[in-house]
Amino acid sequence: MTEAADVMQPAGGFDAPFVKELVRIWRAEDMSGAWAGKSDLDLLEPYILDKEKRRALPVIGDPDPDTVWRLELFFNAVAVSIEKATDVMIQPMLKMHHEGFGRLVLIGGRLIAVNKQLRDVHRFGFDNLAKLASEGNKYIRDGIKMIRKFPDVANY
Amino acid sequence: MTEAADVMQPAGGFDAPFVKELVRIWRAEDMSGAWAGKSDLDLLEPYILDKEKRRALPVIGDPDPDTVWRLELFFNAVAVSIEKATDVMIQPMLKMHHEGFGRLVLIGGRLIAVNKQLRDVHRFGFDNLAKLASEGNKYIRDGIKMIRKFPDVANY
Repeated sequence: MTEAADVMQPAGGFDAPFVKELVRIWRAEDMSGAWAGKSDLDLLEPYILDKEKRRALPVIGDPDPDTVWRLELFFNAVAVSIEKATDVMIQPMLKMHHEGFGRLVLIGGRLIAVNKQLRDVHRFGFDNLAKLASEGNKYIRDGIKMIRKFPDVANY
Repeated sequence: MTEAADVMQPAGGFDAPFVKELVRIWRAEDMSGAWAGKSDLDLLEPYILDKEKRRALPVIGDPDPDTVWRLELFFNAVAVSIEKATDVMIQPMLKMHHEGFGRLVLIGGRLIAVNKQLRDVHRFGFDNLAKLASEGNKYIRDGIKMIRKFPDVANY
């Protein structure tokens, strides 16, 4: 068993539809086929940051562009999942100060379905795969709830 | 006359409340006092692009950072004007591809009060000051209308 697999408990993690969506989005980014030999687990591994790894990452200076990209793909997967559940087209917008704080919104029509204040983006990650799945699902649930609460705004 | 009515009144140019707000915002940016000797007209002059000037600006490559900044201050003035009229706090978000297209939204609560698709940001400007004022007022009116239509979302 690899080290990656150790932290990635399959229960409530790898089979989660959100995680599958996230993997699909990552694969779609792989234009050059560079990751064809990588397992799904390998692709998601950089999302997993235990406490020690997280503490080791400095929060001063600009966040690593790869980290910002991972964050964007994570919320893209949330967006697509909300779209599939509601048939409302969702567009993400990210506004980030270069020092790693900012705001991410997922927009449907004129509604902010998901609103996330960001800080310490340098350390964006999850304790384990189950945590990643449950966080993703929380955003999806919140987004769907907002759209069902304000359908006129989401379909404006 | 209420503040909202004041903000929304159609005015010809320099006396328009929106233009005054825009000048105020520009002056507030002038930390160093470098513009103390500049008239209001001098400050706003770069916004004025007649057809000839506009055509002369190339739309390939990245837009001039000063142009992007002018665009941001323009919509900041719209945001502040909507705030004053509605008592809803407004936050702008800009997402721009470096080639000069993108999207600008003004957010109140969970509502997108103003939604603007951007293109050819390189050429952001107005034929004359009256046009600048009337465009600004149009966004303000639209924003106020949305907030009055969906107060629950704007105050969420």
